[in-house]
Amino acid sequence: MCPHALIPFKPAGPKSRLSGILSPEEREAFARAMLEDVIAAAKDANCSPVIVATELYDSEDIQVTIADKDLSGALNEVLSQAVGSVLILMADLPLATGPAIQRVVTTKSNIAIVPGRGGGTNAIFVAEPAKFHVDYYGMSFSKHLRIAQEAGLSCEVIDSFLLHTDIDEEEDLVELLTHGTGKSRKYLEDLGFTLSAENGRVSVKRKNVSSPRA
Amino acid sequence: MCPHALIPFKPAGPKSRLSGILSPEEREAFARAMLEDVIAAAKDANCSPVIVATELYDSEDIQVTIADKDLSGALNEVLSQAVGSVLILMADLPLATGPAIQRVVTTKSNIAIVPGRGGGTNAIFVAEPAKFHVDYYGMSFSKHLRIAQEAGLSCEVIDSFLLHTDIDEEEDLVELLTHGTGKSRKYLEDLGFTLSAENGRVSVKRKNVSSPRA
Repeated sequence: MCPHALIPFKPAGPKSRLSGILSPEEREAFARAMLEDVIAAAKDANCSPVIVATELYDSEDIQVTIADKDLSGALNEVLSQAVGSVLILMADLPLATGPAIQRVVTTKSNIAIVPGRGGGTNAIFVAEPAKFHVDYYGMSFSKHLRIAQEAGLSCEVIDSFLLHTDIDEEEDLVELLTHGTGKSRKYLEDLGFTLSAENGRVSVKRKNVSSPRA
Repeated sequence: MCPHALIPFKPAGPKSRLSGILSPEEREAFARAMLEDVIAAAKDANCSPVIVATELYDSEDIQVTIADKDLSGALNEVLSQAVGSVLILMADLPLATGPAIQRVVTTKSNIAIVPGRGGGTNAIFVAEPAKFHVDYYGMSFSKHLRIAQEAGLSCEVIDSFLLHTDIDEEEDLVELLTHGTGKSRKYLEDLGFTLSAENGRVSVKRKNVSSPRA
């Protein structure tokens, strides 16, 4: 009753859409901080984190290193060999909490899925991994519903904004600074990011002009 | 045990940030379709909808017409006179469902709040309206938490992406076309809107060049 939580992670050159406001070093440090928040939430939900990375990553947690595969190929290789239920959790979900993940892994369906912004899939729980495969390119949420249906698997959609909120763009940082409680929020605040409400619209502002060392 | 659901609504000139892809008439029709979806969800959750509008609106539901007040002022006037618990629900939440609203109104706390994208407040349930007031300008989510705390009221944050997703910008339409099931999704589809996934990024496309009559 303690599912593995597969967390795909790309240590090098992550989060390119934040390059307007974070340096390459800052983006790498920020991505690591988000990963640590996700790992902490997974552990709080009694899941065992397994980092699925494109290169070896400095962490105490179990790792699977997959060099020459895309995201879906890498995860499907792990799914095909998995024993017991598996949760796949994206690494850029710093609002994730133990209770939110618990709602996913305690589903009574064969599959539980949390959509991400923009048609994606942020979390997916698979009771019997050998019967399912993932396809993360494009409109993956609709694809995953269809794959489950074609395999005759029941599927629950979990209604969670904490797991729906992936951090890709500058405006997503508003969500992190509003609702975050972990290391990645602190990292942004240490860099001088704050919320600003001008004309009623909320955005992020960076106070310090010179970047602190990451 | 059947709370009123106050739904603020602006019939004229709504959703200006969609003006790049919808004509003024289409935006008004789209806003009405979203309102109807929200009303249907509120009724499904056993709430009694009350439209709080800036002008009289053609609807069978109960209406309160407030002419010369801003959103917060209008709602606070209603709250101060309300008998029994009250839910305030934004009109641009077309993914709202009965079960999602049920999670809000069945809170065991004095207040239940669902944050919106960008620091806002999309739904707020108040067990004793006379003890609370709203302030919707800017970072209203944080303000509402503070108002509850200062009034000594317990507050639950409801983790729902269906109620978190307000429709303001073109990219929000991706969420509606992916997850919507009601009239506002159908309205967009009838106008020729579809999802498109190019280079793995999902966006909306409008097929018909000529606008159908709204």
